[in-house]
Amino acid sequence: MCGDMMFKQIVGEIEEELLILEDDLIRAVSTKRKLIEKPLMNMISSGGKRLRPAMLLAAARFGEYDFEIVRPLALSVELIHTATIIHDDIVDDSPIRRGVLSIQSQLGKDVAVYAGDYIFCKVFEILAASTYSNILEQVSKAMSQICEGELKQREDLFDTDLTFKDYLYRIQKKTAILFALSAQMGADVSKAPDKIIKALYSYGINIGMAFQIIDDLLDFTGDYKKLGKPTGSDIREGIITLPVIYALKHSDDRERLQEILKNKNTNEDEMSIAVEIIQKSGGLKYTEHMAERYVQKAKRSIVILPNTPMKKLLEDAPEVIARKCK
Amino acid sequence: MCGDMMFKQIVGEIEEELLILEDDLIRAVSTKRKLIEKPLMNMISSGGKRLRPAMLLAAARFGEYDFEIVRPLALSVELIHTATIIHDDIVDDSPIRRGVLSIQSQLGKDVAVYAGDYIFCKVFEILAASTYSNILEQVSKAMSQICEGELKQREDLFDTDLTFKDYLYRIQKKTAILFALSAQMGADVSKAPDKIIKALYSYGINIGMAFQIIDDLLDFTGDYKKLGKPTGSDIREGIITLPVIYALKHSDDRERLQEILKNKNTNEDEMSIAVEIIQKSGGLKYTEHMAERYVQKAKRSIVILPNTPMKKLLEDAPEVIARKCK
Repeated sequence: MCGDMMFKQIVGEIEEELLILEDDLIRAVSTKRKLIEKPLMNMISSGGKRLRPAMLLAAARFGEYDFEIVRPLALSVELIHTATIIHDDIVDDSPIRRGVLSIQSQLGKDVAVYAGDYIFCKVFEILAASTYSNILEQVSKAMSQICEGELKQREDLFDTDLTFKDYLYRIQKKTAILFALSAQMGADVSKAPDKIIKALYSYGINIGMAFQIIDDLLDFTGDYKKLGKPTGSDIREGIITLPVIYALKHSDDRERLQEILKNKNTNEDEMSIAVEIIQKSGGLKYTEHMAERYVQKAKRSIVILPNTPMKKLLEDAPEVIARKCK
Repeated sequence: MCGDMMFKQIVGEIEEELLILEDDLIRAVSTKRKLIEKPLMNMISSGGKRLRPAMLLAAARFGEYDFEIVRPLALSVELIHTATIIHDDIVDDSPIRRGVLSIQSQLGKDVAVYAGDYIFCKVFEILAASTYSNILEQVSKAMSQICEGELKQREDLFDTDLTFKDYLYRIQKKTAILFALSAQMGADVSKAPDKIIKALYSYGINIGMAFQIIDDLLDFTGDYKKLGKPTGSDIREGIITLPVIYALKHSDDRERLQEILKNKNTNEDEMSIAVEIIQKSGGLKYTEHMAERYVQKAKRSIVILPNTPMKKLLEDAPEVIARKCK
């Protein structure tokens, strides 16, 4: 079979496995508690790109691949992601998630708290049945870090003295760790060699960083309709991201920008001025450049991987993510 | 050593161990995230009776007792309880917890969501380090059930058609399961015989049921100052408990009561009427009687235990709890 056909075959295989996981997801959120069952079902079926399970299924192919072994783990990383965004929506007061009403706006913050908790519990129920003793340690440590990242974001709200380092620390915990965990677990349970596991972990961190940086960039450049939220939503909520930190350091209007961003009751006109200052500062270009750096770092992380179609897929994936911001 | 001295010695030992656990609790909630560290510290140091770890330490003494083995588990059950009440306070909008401001009223619902999540993650970090494979399964199943119980309570709000069975189902999940888990885990890791583990699990369920029934009763009979909330707080929030279900079935004024309870915007005068109808209905006497039945069931659950001072302590404990309502 030629390289191209093998490539297509492997993509097809992963797509099929992800379809099976859709059923697993639906089963995992089935509950006698009707109050949350339907909103959870809606949330699951309204999509999401399933990037984390896809990463896990890909990474596992560098060891002795067995879908039945990685299946519960792939399910778990998507459930962790799901629970995290349910609780995030409470904190951010988000009305919309994946084009449908968020659980907190449908049913109130109180139900959303328990709906998220319920899914976290499911994750541990699934993992408790796993026989890999170190998996649980990896997952629980990762989850603590995600939580730390969320809290850091909450602490940093409206803080215009935030440094690049603060930002990178936060997004590593908040976002990149779960990508890295997915890659690591897949390779680990498939008994890939240690240096491959480490390479894939590093790949996950870097692609996760790129992903979040691009997501934050899209808040300033993205299509309103596609994103379902207006330009500059993050700064409205006080979330200081990379383009903003750049502008606060380098813009000629940085004092004006700081003044607007520190004010928790800024009006729409001032917000537009802030967005304009950020756009003019060169912060978007800088952010794009930083995302590109992580894309390249992700690619370099996996040079030691054997030259298989799977490696080619991983090499191409960061570019696909990066294209989102073009 | 005579029985009485041994009895005192064993109580003293458990008290000492609980003091060590206080330090463990403080260490467990230490975090770089200053936003939640102090409120969590305050919450831990403002007390709580540590009933669940005490239960675990007691149950473990029916096997090969080793404090260092049960210590992380005792810590875990108290942390589960702590995380649960942080999230409960969001749902109930409670301003006060253990005499200090609740985390949600100090820092907002959003921080409280993450503070609870952070502690849940800690629990699994601690348990992941444990070598007992079935412990994690027990804990995660119990946590799913607690969550189901909380959701059931939320579903049942303002539902005046609630049955005794609904109520018992809900409090078993919401409260009794964690007592049972504590007893079971303690006995299990200490390698107590199977029938002793089962007896202690059943004891935990029954004492947990009695505990919650009495707690619900105190909402109608308790001292305002001691409880820090006014009589009838539960029905104000729409939570239908045992005395209310009884009154809705047996009071001559049951139609009036139903009308008041179904109305989500009832005023204070009508609330006082509702409390009075419930008090006159005989519902409080009935509830006391039900609590007593579970106290007796708890005692009967452990008849097969060897006659040790520890057994005597467990036999006396339900009465101590029941005395709360006198």
